[in-house]
Amino acid sequence: MTTEGRGRRSGGRAARVEARLHAVAEKVPFITRTMAPLEVLSEEGLQTIEHNADTILERVGIDFREAPDAVALFRDAGADVDGERVRFPRGLARSIIQATAPREFDQHARNPANTVHLGGSATVFAPAYGSPFVHDLDQGRRYGTIEDFRNFVKLTYASPYLHHSGGTVCEPVDLPVNKRHYEMVYAHMRWSDKAFMGSVTHPERARDTVDMARLLFGAEFLETHCVVLSLVNANSPLVWDATMLGAARAYAEANQGLIVTPFILAGAMSPATVAGAAAQTLAEALAGMAYVQLVRPGAPVVFGSFASSMSMQSGAPTFGTPEPALVLYALAACARRLGVPFRSGGALTASKLPDAQAAYESANTMQPAMLAGVNFVLHTAGWLEGGLAMGYEKFVLDADQAGMWHAFARGVDLSPNGQAIDAIVDNGPGQHFLGHAHTLANFETAFYRSAVADNNSFEQWELDGSKDAAERANAIWKRTLAEYEPPPIDEAVDEELRAWIERRKASFPDSNV
Amino acid sequence: MTTEGRGRRSGGRAARVEARLHAVAEKVPFITRTMAPLEVLSEEGLQTIEHNADTILERVGIDFREAPDAVALFRDAGADVDGERVRFPRGLARSIIQATAPREFDQHARNPANTVHLGGSATVFAPAYGSPFVHDLDQGRRYGTIEDFRNFVKLTYASPYLHHSGGTVCEPVDLPVNKRHYEMVYAHMRWSDKAFMGSVTHPERARDTVDMARLLFGAEFLETHCVVLSLVNANSPLVWDATMLGAARAYAEANQGLIVTPFILAGAMSPATVAGAAAQTLAEALAGMAYVQLVRPGAPVVFGSFASSMSMQSGAPTFGTPEPALVLYALAACARRLGVPFRSGGALTASKLPDAQAAYESANTMQPAMLAGVNFVLHTAGWLEGGLAMGYEKFVLDADQAGMWHAFARGVDLSPNGQAIDAIVDNGPGQHFLGHAHTLANFETAFYRSAVADNNSFEQWELDGSKDAAERANAIWKRTLAEYEPPPIDEAVDEELRAWIERRKASFPDSNV
Repeated sequence: MTTEGRGRRSGGRAARVEARLHAVAEKVPFITRTMAPLEVLSEEGLQTIEHNADTILERVGIDFREAPDAVALFRDAGADVDGERVRFPRGLARSIIQATAPREFDQHARNPANTVHLGGSATVFAPAYGSPFVHDLDQGRRYGTIEDFRNFVKLTYASPYLHHSGGTVCEPVDLPVNKRHYEMVYAHMRWSDKAFMGSVTHPERARDTVDMARLLFGAEFLETHCVVLSLVNANSPLVWDATMLGAARAYAEANQGLIVTPFILAGAMSPATVAGAAAQTLAEALAGMAYVQLVRPGAPVVFGSFASSMSMQSGAPTFGTPEPALVLYALAACARRLGVPFRSGGALTASKLPDAQAAYESANTMQPAMLAGVNFVLHTAGWLEGGLAMGYEKFVLDADQAGMWHAFARGVDLSPNGQAIDAIVDNGPGQHFLGHAHTLANFETAFYRSAVADNNSFEQWELDGSKDAAERANAIWKRTLAEYEPPPIDEAVDEELRAWIERRKASFPDSNV
Repeated sequence: MTTEGRGRRSGGRAARVEARLHAVAEKVPFITRTMAPLEVLSEEGLQTIEHNADTILERVGIDFREAPDAVALFRDAGADVDGERVRFPRGLARSIIQATAPREFDQHARNPANTVHLGGSATVFAPAYGSPFVHDLDQGRRYGTIEDFRNFVKLTYASPYLHHSGGTVCEPVDLPVNKRHYEMVYAHMRWSDKAFMGSVTHPERARDTVDMARLLFGAEFLETHCVVLSLVNANSPLVWDATMLGAARAYAEANQGLIVTPFILAGAMSPATVAGAAAQTLAEALAGMAYVQLVRPGAPVVFGSFASSMSMQSGAPTFGTPEPALVLYALAACARRLGVPFRSGGALTASKLPDAQAAYESANTMQPAMLAGVNFVLHTAGWLEGGLAMGYEKFVLDADQAGMWHAFARGVDLSPNGQAIDAIVDNGPGQHFLGHAHTLANFETAFYRSAVADNNSFEQWELDGSKDAAERANAIWKRTLAEYEPPPIDEAVDEELRAWIERRKASFPDSNV
């Protein structure tokens, strides 16, 4: 053997070891599921939920509060109007949606490699949304700032397992309420190149989001492409209010995407039963999605459901319980039957810490989200304390789980290499497979490799400091932020965005309303 | 309104509050699932796994080591024998099993209310099995003792969500190896009245277990009823050894139940791929179950699978990863097609602590166990550190999750009360449901109530000591043990058992082999 030969060999081996330590699963812009969803209701059961939703829309109707435009649109479409109350003849809302809403659509990212698909067998993971507080092991719980906001945009950008930058990843409480959205939307645009969500706290802020998107993507592109996906919530039970409808109108008029979500704490905002919460959610979502289609036929809509159980002692929301999982499975099937993408799920928990309660409850929500075939999973990473806090360590733990779902969703590899029958026949009884050529060939990709789990011996774990999962996650988010490098952006566009933002900010006084 | 009336009312209210605080879900002897299992393989895919298992049995065969009785039985049944190697013509093992093994069976508990059903839509939860160490927050990790063993029998007895007392809930390392089984089996018999598992570490110890069961249940009863269910593992790849076969023979001859489990660390004891591990597991289990049927046609058998992934850096087993979940789903379907009950799953984790890693990994194994329709879930509660430790707090956290599955498995209630359509129509837009008669009527049973989760406000949680889930679980297991009361037992039977044990113990010297 020549020296060169030996050199090559050991070089090859070192390179392989290196590759092994740093390998990540193949990066994909979204998950494509290969399995049929789990069904918890029969055809007859689903028809019952749909029938009840129609009964609610027909007999009770929905209040569209301080929204004369919505009332007028529905009157013209054939609904029965009584003041702000709109009652829908059976099937009307469904037929309005099915006439024009796309079954599936793309939301474009400024990096085309990160464009996500909504609907069908696609599943898109986005981080948690809307918390006023942030939490980490070093400082505990505190109000969120724009620096925290940027940190979570960067952490999401860095994760190969989160496909979407999300929206209000935390509230930047250090900025005035009426100008926060400029810096939030800008952070998504500048510090990530993944798709993102827009502001919905005021119709004007929704229009600002669309204007900024026009600067980034070009006004013409927006007319025919969805580049912003925003979240509007019903005011359950059975009310849509002017703020959410106004924001929805602003996005729909610009042909941008909307997730229409009844946010339901069952027992308080709906009946305490699964079938009751499901029927009411369907009714409220049908009304909201129909409104969007009447404003702009063909505007992309996603049927959203957020259902939590509640503590019957304290009235506090509870998560990871069986009943919201059943609502999720039932409504995912309803969305498929309606023919629109579905949003639900997430790593939901009432825990204040990234502990066993947090992980159990989060897993209990993420599992149904994946197995029901949810298309857009908001709150995939970071959620703590019923959504009141965004956790740094929780984010790392959840994003790792999101990675596992990529491997699961691919299903069972039945290629000859996957079947491995030759290896089994060749190996024989009592011989381990560690050194077998088949094992070596599959070494790097055989099993999902967690970045957070400690699988070492007890003794090694003690030598490493006896850390729990949250402590290991603490080191990971710090390293990720330290190593963060922003995606490239056209400097002229960036300057235009910044100048536009500064002009807008200067044009009216700060306010915290 | 009379004073009496008011008195009754407030008395009724206090009683309701009391009931609410102490309500537990309806206690059932096992779960009856109402939903079709999730399938990860098509009919064609399942046929491929079965075909490959037959190929392994035909071309490679299984080594039955130091077990001439097994080799002779298989020769007589039509297998090709070459020394200790037994090769099976295609379909032989399957046809032996299908000719005589029961599709479903009961395992009788000494309290008939706790008799469990194995197979079909039944799911039975048993605690973790086999760890030499125990762990709690106060003392950390240490070797298990017979006191720990009794504690876990008592904790399992006290849980409404664990149906089965299990077997080696931890190793009582303070007792001599060759006499431990007497105190272990006695603890299950005396400190619980749930069904239990027997000793498999030596054929003689299996016979001792059967003899003790005859004292407890009556010799005649045993001939026609399964009262002991025991766990025998293949020595993968493709080997069955004399100890396990001898124990299996002892139980089968007494018509007692056996769980036949290839215990596979994929990548070491099988190929690293899902389809490869599944086919090999099926082949090994078919051979083991066929052996049991040849020893005693009709003896109850359960097809077991335990598959873990491994760290390709260190060779350590890893849990909660997607690949073992896929193996579980695939083999559960194979068991249904074969027509025998299936064992797999559990709250598996490599974590050393009851932390977020432990909970995430455990949930990732329990979810597929339930959704695949596993019939016997060993390791439902307590497992830590890849099975090396039984955790007190982990046990409490896992048993709480087991409770949630009771509610999930019932599915969606579509009764008029479940549909709640009258309540929704009656309530109207914008009115919360907290005080509605429907909510009050469903108050106590609407949602699963966790004993461990903290759903309070951050402020209340801080006032309560800022405890994480493991710290709350610590208080729960201590309270449960303090409040434990043993089930009644016939004193004469108990004395007979104790006297028999003492005679047996005195009849041969202690040994740690």
